[in-house]
Amino acid sequence: MSRLFEEIRSSPLLWLLVFVPVVLGVEIVRPDAHTLLFLLSVLAIVPLAALLSLATESVAERTGDAAGGLINATLGNLTELVIAVTALAAGQYALVKASIAGAIVTNALFMLGACFLLGGLRHHMQDFNRTGARLQASLLFIATVALLIPSAIVAADNIDNPEAIQKLSLLLALLLVAGYVLGLWFSLGTHRTSFASAAPAENHHVPLPIGLALVTLAAVTVLVALVSHIFVASVEVAGAALGLTPAFVGFIVVSLVGGAAEFASAFAAARKDRLDLSVSIALGSAAQIALFVAPLLVLLSYVVGPAPMGLDFWPGAVVMMVIAALSAALLTAGGHSAWFLGVLVLMVYAIFALTLYVLPLSQ
Amino acid sequence: MSRLFEEIRSSPLLWLLVFVPVVLGVEIVRPDAHTLLFLLSVLAIVPLAALLSLATESVAERTGDAAGGLINATLGNLTELVIAVTALAAGQYALVKASIAGAIVTNALFMLGACFLLGGLRHHMQDFNRTGARLQASLLFIATVALLIPSAIVAADNIDNPEAIQKLSLLLALLLVAGYVLGLWFSLGTHRTSFASAAPAENHHVPLPIGLALVTLAAVTVLVALVSHIFVASVEVAGAALGLTPAFVGFIVVSLVGGAAEFASAFAAARKDRLDLSVSIALGSAAQIALFVAPLLVLLSYVVGPAPMGLDFWPGAVVMMVIAALSAALLTAGGHSAWFLGVLVLMVYAIFALTLYVLPLSQ
Amino acid sequence: MSRLFEEIRSSPLLWLLVFVPVVLGVEIVRPDAHTLLFLLSVLAIVPLAALLSLATESVAERTGDAAGGLINATLGNLTELVIAVTALAAGQYALVKASIAGAIVTNALFMLGACFLLGGLRHHMQDFNRTGARLQASLLFIATVALLIPSAIVAADNIDNPEAIQKLSLLLALLLVAGYVLGLWFSLGTHRTSFASAAPAENHHVPLPIGLALVTLAAVTVLVALVSHIFVASVEVAGAALGLTPAFVGFIVVSLVGGAAEFASAFAAARKDRLDLSVSIALGSAAQIALFVAPLLVLLSYVVGPAPMGLDFWPGAVVMMVIAALSAALLTAGGHSAWFLGVLVLMVYAIFALTLYVLPLSQ
Repeated sequence: MSRLFEEIRSSPLLWLLVFVPVVLGVEIVRPDAHTLLFLLSVLAIVPLAALLSLATESVAERTGDAAGGLINATLGNLTELVIAVTALAAGQYALVKASIAGAIVTNALFMLGACFLLGGLRHHMQDFNRTGARLQASLLFIATVALLIPSAIVAADNIDNPEAIQKLSLLLALLLVAGYVLGLWFSLGTHRTSFASAAPAENHHVPLPIGLALVTLAAVTVLVALVSHIFVASVEVAGAALGLTPAFVGFIVVSLVGGAAEFASAFAAARKDRLDLSVSIALGSAAQIALFVAPLLVLLSYVVGPAPMGLDFWPGAVVMMVIAALSAALLTAGGHSAWFLGVLVLMVYAIFALTLYVLPLSQ
Repeated sequence: MSRLFEEIRSSPLLWLLVFVPVVLGVEIVRPDAHTLLFLLSVLAIVPLAALLSLATESVAERTGDAAGGLINATLGNLTELVIAVTALAAGQYALVKASIAGAIVTNALFMLGACFLLGGLRHHMQDFNRTGARLQASLLFIATVALLIPSAIVAADNIDNPEAIQKLSLLLALLLVAGYVLGLWFSLGTHRTSFASAAPAENHHVPLPIGLALVTLAAVTVLVALVSHIFVASVEVAGAALGLTPAFVGFIVVSLVGGAAEFASAFAAARKDRLDLSVSIALGSAAQIALFVAPLLVLLSYVVGPAPMGLDFWPGAVVMMVIAALSAALLTAGGHSAWFLGVLVLMVYAIFALTLYVLPLSQ
Repeated sequence: MSRLFEEIRSSPLLWLLVFVPVVLGVEIVRPDAHTLLFLLSVLAIVPLAALLSLATESVAERTGDAAGGLINATLGNLTELVIAVTALAAGQYALVKASIAGAIVTNALFMLGACFLLGGLRHHMQDFNRTGARLQASLLFIATVALLIPSAIVAADNIDNPEAIQKLSLLLALLLVAGYVLGLWFSLGTHRTSFASAAPAENHHVPLPIGLALVTLAAVTVLVALVSHIFVASVEVAGAALGLTPAFVGFIVVSLVGGAAEFASAFAAARKDRLDLSVSIALGSAAQIALFVAPLLVLLSYVVGPAPMGLDFWPGAVVMMVIAALSAALLTAGGHSAWFLGVLVLMVYAIFALTLYVLPLSQ
């Protein structure tokens, strides 16, 4: 237990944990202070995400290669998943879909662009030619495309048949999950060596002992769920008060908050000129959302939600996801990076954010 | 002649030739058994396509390099062409367009993905970095884009002016055919050496003697035309009975049936770790449809069809073709392949098929 | 001064300068001869653009590396800018937007394709693998995407809120200009060495003396403005008389006319097997339009135009720009070129031109 406190003391990000009891307290005392609750819950989720990531990595490290890889692969986006499931249970499907689309775009553009920029500020020109990075980019492109086909075709053909779309979404979700399972078999089984090399060195933390890690994992997941509940309940009123559309909150705020822990790892790797690793975290996480989190949420909507949720995104989100996946594929295909490339990618992300902020999108 | 029987006896695929007389017989005895005729005609076309491919290759081989290349290049998709011309004469333009779009998508995704998968099951990681493969991918991308521009712009701008679209389609068809002729001059003339190296080794058959090959070519083309006639006449009623939309039949069934012979060659090459050749067959065939078969059908529609046919595809088909060409270009640009990449590409193809199966597309 | 005449005598293109006094004279004598004025103004702008380019290069060369680079980067598309500002002042926003879109497409397809073709006619296979070219292609792709996001999302979501779109366009223009300034710092500052190597050798002209160059720059800019004024005033009536839509004139005619000088440099480099330089001129110029000229025109519309101009292009233009940027990125990623690739790229450009010529586009 003292190990955990030590970890917290040495990491400034974890000091934000103080906001967890604060937000839970305010929720009891002043349940109608939506804007305050919204801001406090955002501040509370960031350190919880970091702690969750630490616990997941520790469990993964202590359970050996194969099982550890499986745990990392399934729990890597646990924060995003818990937030989305909470929104799902509340029937806020627009928020769920925005957070899926936003997580893909944020990982593929913001995380990648910031890695290029941060790495480029220290190093004149960075290379990342290795096979793994390119494979990952192809994987992300195909995964995103697979997720988007129904939305694209529905939009292109102006189809208005909710039942058929729902049936297609369900079949598609099953197909994507099957693809994800095969992907695990690929990266943890037949082609483990191609992927394994990069991972271990990433971990600059000493892993937590297995018992503590499991308890932390369970306890923090519960805390994330509690705070997410407050977040989801307050987001609509608070968003309106702050002048933010639900699309902006789901797309930008949720994904920046939920991905904070991964950003920290990826940025650190970029600064150390280990851009292969940064690219792999960014694209791998984006692909995981498309292949695993998104279809899982569709399947869970049959159990948790008030009604089945489909995979039909609003057309603007489709455009953004396609552009993000294409940009990531083209930029990483080059194999070189310099700071200005990072600026440009961040600019595209900023334009997305601006568009979502300014335009009254019909979700 | 005994050479031909020998060829048939040694190749299990050709045993399906028995369905040719069966379908022709059933057509006479029970012309209203649409579903049966549909299934039988599908089974009959597959071996005819294989035989046609064998005859074409034999003629090509016996007539020397330049003329042979020309024959391979123009008759390589003869089965698809005969089926499409039959549908054209019957005025089934939706079927024709679906089969053009489907052939491009099937070659660029199904054939390529299956090659990656089959090759990857035998070989841990496959490379195909050579110049020819990349040139071919660029060619396919540009060819597909060239074919799609009018549809994309018509869809984007909501243009509703059939006469202008028809005029544009005719001009475009002439331009594409001119581009194809220049392409032949490129691959058979100025840059023959870049392309020739791969081709000869492909041929594991002993070619038929020239006389027999020519007779086979003529006779089998007539048989394909006869069976296609039955196929086209039965497809609509049978499709409805089997719960298949015309879009699904044209897009998926026709292209899988018509391309069977090419699939066999490409798959064999992939298993022998000759992925350059597989990629070249898949992308080359897709590009040939876009640059040659599609515009040729537009031109033929002025002679054969009840009315001129335009190059305006329905928006969903445009989306699928663009995604297929982009995926092929990105995946082959990487220059590496492993089995899971094949799974992902096949997944995209499966999603297309699922979408066409489930959604009531407005062709 | 005699140096200038010498330059004119030695360059056949500059003989067209005779049309400058002719068009100015005809404008006074027969101000209603719109078609004649249109044709004469086109003929007059071509040599003025060449002269402007010569003067710009001379000033750049005489003022040293950093300042010279800055001048080249900001005045490189001066002709296009002057024509567009004239159209802006006349309130012809459709023409302005068509000329922005057309300049990007013409540089990325026509210039690139013609370089591939002209280079390929002399050299069997050309390589251009160097880092700079790929960086430039990524830059063009991202820049184009950045410019297009609002249009794409407006089109996808059917948004009809002119005020919000205008606000977004203004914010976006500021962001793009900021990006451009950072880009200058990148190419002239931190990464000068990566870009500088290619530039000097390009200049086969002896630069003009600085005084003469500055006077020429000022005088020719005034002449371009005068001729542009005639061009813009006559284009609508003349276009209708010649059967050309404003979209065709803005997209094709203006960009071919305005870019003539750059084409000459790029083509010469391609023939000398310096394809790196050709690609850099083509993609660099296209990126400059997207990142600098387009947002500058939006900002200028608040000062010069009758009303603010937005960055919402008509959907067909969006499709064309995306295809052009993607094609350029994919073709230059390959790193190889042969004449037929040039033919295909030019074919895509021809199809764009044909489509704009035939279809009654709703700008």
